[in-house]
Amino acid sequence: MASNSLGTVFKVTSFGESHGPTIGVVIDGCKAGIQFNESFISRQLQRRRPGQSALTTSRNEDENFSVISGVFEGKTTGAPICILIPNTDARPEAYDALKNIFRPSHADYTYYTKYGVRDHRGGGRSSARVTAGWVAAGAFAQSILAEKGITVQAYVSQVGSIKVARPYSELNLSETDTSPVRCPDKEAASAMEKYIEQLKSQGNSTGGMVSCVIKNCPAGLGEPLFDKLQANLAKAMFSINAVKGFDYGSGFESVGMTGGQHNDEYVLDGSKITTRTNFSGGIQGGISTGNDIYMRVAFKPVATIAAAQRSLNTEREEVTIEAKGRHDPCVVPRAVPIVESMAALVIYDHLLIAGG
Amino acid sequence: MASNSLGTVFKVTSFGESHGPTIGVVIDGCKAGIQFNESFISRQLQRRRPGQSALTTSRNEDENFSVISGVFEGKTTGAPICILIPNTDARPEAYDALKNIFRPSHADYTYYTKYGVRDHRGGGRSSARVTAGWVAAGAFAQSILAEKGITVQAYVSQVGSIKVARPYSELNLSETDTSPVRCPDKEAASAMEKYIEQLKSQGNSTGGMVSCVIKNCPAGLGEPLFDKLQANLAKAMFSINAVKGFDYGSGFESVGMTGGQHNDEYVLDGSKITTRTNFSGGIQGGISTGNDIYMRVAFKPVATIAAAQRSLNTEREEVTIEAKGRHDPCVVPRAVPIVESMAALVIYDHLLIAGG
Amino acid sequence: MASNSLGTVFKVTSFGESHGPTIGVVIDGCKAGIQFNESFISRQLQRRRPGQSALTTSRNEDENFSVISGVFEGKTTGAPICILIPNTDARPEAYDALKNIFRPSHADYTYYTKYGVRDHRGGGRSSARVTAGWVAAGAFAQSILAEKGITVQAYVSQVGSIKVARPYSELNLSETDTSPVRCPDKEAASAMEKYIEQLKSQGNSTGGMVSCVIKNCPAGLGEPLFDKLQANLAKAMFSINAVKGFDYGSGFESVGMTGGQHNDEYVLDGSKITTRTNFSGGIQGGISTGNDIYMRVAFKPVATIAAAQRSLNTEREEVTIEAKGRHDPCVVPRAVPIVESMAALVIYDHLLIAGG
Amino acid sequence: MASNSLGTVFKVTSFGESHGPTIGVVIDGCKAGIQFNESFISRQLQRRRPGQSALTTSRNEDENFSVISGVFEGKTTGAPICILIPNTDARPEAYDALKNIFRPSHADYTYYTKYGVRDHRGGGRSSARVTAGWVAAGAFAQSILAEKGITVQAYVSQVGSIKVARPYSELNLSETDTSPVRCPDKEAASAMEKYIEQLKSQGNSTGGMVSCVIKNCPAGLGEPLFDKLQANLAKAMFSINAVKGFDYGSGFESVGMTGGQHNDEYVLDGSKITTRTNFSGGIQGGISTGNDIYMRVAFKPVATIAAAQRSLNTEREEVTIEAKGRHDPCVVPRAVPIVESMAALVIYDHLLIAGG
Repeated sequence: MASNSLGTVFKVTSFGESHGPTIGVVIDGCKAGIQFNESFISRQLQRRRPGQSALTTSRNEDENFSVISGVFEGKTTGAPICILIPNTDARPEAYDALKNIFRPSHADYTYYTKYGVRDHRGGGRSSARVTAGWVAAGAFAQSILAEKGITVQAYVSQVGSIKVARPYSELNLSETDTSPVRCPDKEAASAMEKYIEQLKSQGNSTGGMVSCVIKNCPAGLGEPLFDKLQANLAKAMFSINAVKGFDYGSGFESVGMTGGQHNDEYVLDGSKITTRTNFSGGIQGGISTGNDIYMRVAFKPVATIAAAQRSLNTEREEVTIEAKGRHDPCVVPRAVPIVESMAALVIYDHLLIAGG
Repeated sequence: MASNSLGTVFKVTSFGESHGPTIGVVIDGCKAGIQFNESFISRQLQRRRPGQSALTTSRNEDENFSVISGVFEGKTTGAPICILIPNTDARPEAYDALKNIFRPSHADYTYYTKYGVRDHRGGGRSSARVTAGWVAAGAFAQSILAEKGITVQAYVSQVGSIKVARPYSELNLSETDTSPVRCPDKEAASAMEKYIEQLKSQGNSTGGMVSCVIKNCPAGLGEPLFDKLQANLAKAMFSINAVKGFDYGSGFESVGMTGGQHNDEYVLDGSKITTRTNFSGGIQGGISTGNDIYMRVAFKPVATIAAAQRSLNTEREEVTIEAKGRHDPCVVPRAVPIVESMAALVIYDHLLIAGG
Repeated sequence: MASNSLGTVFKVTSFGESHGPTIGVVIDGCKAGIQFNESFISRQLQRRRPGQSALTTSRNEDENFSVISGVFEGKTTGAPICILIPNTDARPEAYDALKNIFRPSHADYTYYTKYGVRDHRGGGRSSARVTAGWVAAGAFAQSILAEKGITVQAYVSQVGSIKVARPYSELNLSETDTSPVRCPDKEAASAMEKYIEQLKSQGNSTGGMVSCVIKNCPAGLGEPLFDKLQANLAKAMFSINAVKGFDYGSGFESVGMTGGQHNDEYVLDGSKITTRTNFSGGIQGGISTGNDIYMRVAFKPVATIAAAQRSLNTEREEVTIEAKGRHDPCVVPRAVPIVESMAALVIYDHLLIAGG
Repeated sequence: MASNSLGTVFKVTSFGESHGPTIGVVIDGCKAGIQFNESFISRQLQRRRPGQSALTTSRNEDENFSVISGVFEGKTTGAPICILIPNTDARPEAYDALKNIFRPSHADYTYYTKYGVRDHRGGGRSSARVTAGWVAAGAFAQSILAEKGITVQAYVSQVGSIKVARPYSELNLSETDTSPVRCPDKEAASAMEKYIEQLKSQGNSTGGMVSCVIKNCPAGLGEPLFDKLQANLAKAMFSINAVKGFDYGSGFESVGMTGGQHNDEYVLDGSKITTRTNFSGGIQGGISTGNDIYMRVAFKPVATIAAAQRSLNTEREEVTIEAKGRHDPCVVPRAVPIVESMAALVIYDHLLIAGG
């Protein structure tokens, strides 16, 4: 069944495998006459790519891309936009030893069960490598939103048990990239960095949290029943590898609250209707209120670790596996642009659905 | 934009408003020759309906339903199945006083902003009343899954700050309905019940959590990229009114774990491949593993409370509102069959996608 | 597989069987604030219904309908609109004798092969009865288009070998309903009427052609590749029972023409760009030009005839069947509102896709 | 609005412009483990490409292609398949003179109206060049069908007024390619060839007809209402540039027939149920009967002619245009593999929908 497309009006179709020649996306449904912002796309691809700091895996992708259709003289034509990103560090043979092994908490076993065949080259289609294409498409959406004053900003809010205690409204999100962990709270960032370095040296990994804020989103986006804004944001976030949880607004904390505490009272801000609090997280009944939309995305620890692990192979034999060299102790700093991209894709798609 | 359908092969389209004559669903894509289990649908509608215990709202719906197409001599024909559920307690005039008021944390304001017009009769389309239709469709899916040995069981795992400490595997889920709060842990259930009664008398409400477990789901369900099983479960759950968070498997807890702790080691159970732990929550790479799928759904406190609240009306004037009589201090006991229904719709749809 | 919906933005889902209690449609995606024109819908349902003249079948349906959602105080609310049309002449038992017989050129055999079970009550889901729901939805779309000055007019242009020789531009389409055959050319109409009466008395039936013209359609509707306006018109027309052919503009005649004859030269009409001829039929590259869109829809002779026919039953035994009483010698007069409805649904959907 | 995808389970997304660097397709929904038949795809691309005989345009494309995802070790993996076909004869500058001119019966004016901008390079997205991608995808589907014994064969049945009089069943379709016009009737082929040569020398063009036959299609393909097999075949054929008409089975001829003549009587062929005649064209009620499916596709004369023509430009000024050199007097011989491809895509998609 076709399942590699996301979006209703602004539809993104993904293709390509971790260690094939090229990955890419086709964006279908983009309006004509929009400036195609290549430099912003480049920047986001750089933020996502492995090897950008000492904290991540050493897989090294240049992340050059080419646009082979849909853009003419710097602007979109209304035709589908195909973006190709060559895999410059494709080393399929590096995975030959894992050919028949089910790595713990990877998709090896489920793909094998589902498809009968398996593209064992670095996880094939299940690799986070394919998210580079989503980032290209999402960065394009993000640049269009930015032109309309709508900003999408993500940051790391937790690594292991180290949390950013302050709410997003008290942070300076423009400082997110001043630390390699992409946490705008300097103290927490420093502690996170040390923890990740320690895990790296131990060959271990950690989970983490990415928070995301959308500002200046107009009221009225989202559809009432099965295309609620939060439902499509959730679906998009759970498409990202390693995501285990999502909430928005008061989220899981609302479980412990009463209606009296939680209800957002309507007040006037000059002549504009707004709410005194924003436990709603900028969405009511599936539709944006015009207030900030904020959400959290929980990532499990990366399954690839350097320590020896026991597992089974396709012959049901016990095996011991060790991942030498290229493991990523904490994925969330690199997940920041991915989360921004998915949020931007959903918001821009709903803006178009609403006729914007 | 059309947004009232859920599912790919087994597609459910919802219609109807809170205080119109009838709500209903059309199920398109059901195979021919399937026994139509009316009694199980009745049972689930009874579990969802208001007024079933002293803990809930007193809105009183009979929840009789009729099947007007797609079923012939007790079996499905392959034609679309239309189910109608009359609103026996429709009292549109009861809402006239609220006609121009934006109730706090309701969808009044966003609907008004989006549509210009507003069906003020009890929230109209945004009312939880419409979930009765989803429960009818979902209960049918659940009954088909049950025939295949796949069970979907939800229960209340938290109300306010009262939590069920034990994991689902140590609970007897067949005892869920022995308490009116639908919590199978007797001690927690008793505390929850007292807390809800206290809030009811105070005219206040509380948030809560529903946990859900799917057993005997075959391996191989779910699609790799944008139709991951967890992504479609999340989307379905966020379609339910008042849901603020969703996680599955280790969920938000995984953020604080290391890869060494979290990875699920493959082991043999007789000749069957399984894992020693199940932090994965029965899904890897978007595809079911064959292990139990478990998830949590966080509900905010119901926005309708009896205590006086301040708000604005469409003329931007300050108003004070009080909901007399029909408020529901805690929605999660009634949300149990809704969560089961949404889970069943997603699982059965993926089973059909996979050719089952 | 779900296949009972038509349209992208203005989506119509059909349900109901020929001799079940009710047929109906759900319209999802209708904007809020649109006047719901019940009288036009009634008129079109009357034009479609059996028994309206001596030329058609005597099955007698009242075609009353009720709107049970999505319309409040006479206007649409943006919620899905459900329309129910009870089957007042449902006589399922009348078909018991045909229970196991494959009627020639009916869908009995293919449904039986596909579904294993068969709803034999008057063709069940394959009956033209279900097109009443499409007419209700299409008439609503047609009334919205009419408000914008866009008219959709169909008429009978051929019955058997009796053809209307003149092009549509030389006919007065407002006189279509002055003859029971719905042919605006009086001479042809009279000959058609005689031919149909003759066939009726012989228990035989004839094929026919419906032509359709859309005036004042704005330029720019239709999408370039796989949602070309003509492609979606064709798909909609081939959804109608008994349709065997479709062409638009010069159609099949263009096969015998040269480019020099066929090309539509651009000229100015005042300051408006138009073409000297309109062999294009108002569509170029899948997109409307602003000129009249015209098309032809070819219908086979109705398969139900009164004369004795030989066939097989489910036991592979030879049988003889005779349809007593209720046969329709020529379906095209009643197909006129169906063709209009399908055209209106496609045009209005594309208008909404284009942001109109 | 996204409109560049065709198909439900086996979904083809097209991208690329006539004179951009590359055109291509992504096939999403292909099963794993299918042999990828490159040589058959090559053959069909050769049959479609310009410049293959003296009868066609001299635009000369090599039609080499590369498969950059979804195929591993010669077999499909279940991941999306991306096929790229470089435009080796891209000469965008050749179209500079036409930059502001609306060529008669081309899509220049409608694209300009719809998008505001225009990719004037050889028609851009509206060029028949993009059908090369469809042929690649369709040829792959055709090769899978062939493995199952289902054959899809198209041929030229009319050019101008020269018709093949005999029905397809009396022709040897394996001889289709023995004439450059792809007509298996030698006498007609010879007359067509002369007529096309004459038009070429005159700088003129002609319309033509392609007939297509599908043999050994199993019974039960197609869905009852809005995904009738004929409806999806029609939609696919009307996606092809220059198509003006489509019919199947008795088609437009059925208009002049009576039910007594037209009904296909069920008879036994050994123990197999079949029909004495096949006016139904292998489809009843939208569902395949198991008999041959046959259809006709009418093509208008190519709009590009060498003779001088008058037109307008974007400034509303009268201009005279002449197409020197590269015009194609008759497109139907090259349309044969396109028609086969579209038919194969629809049939294979429905086979998968039916679980095949």
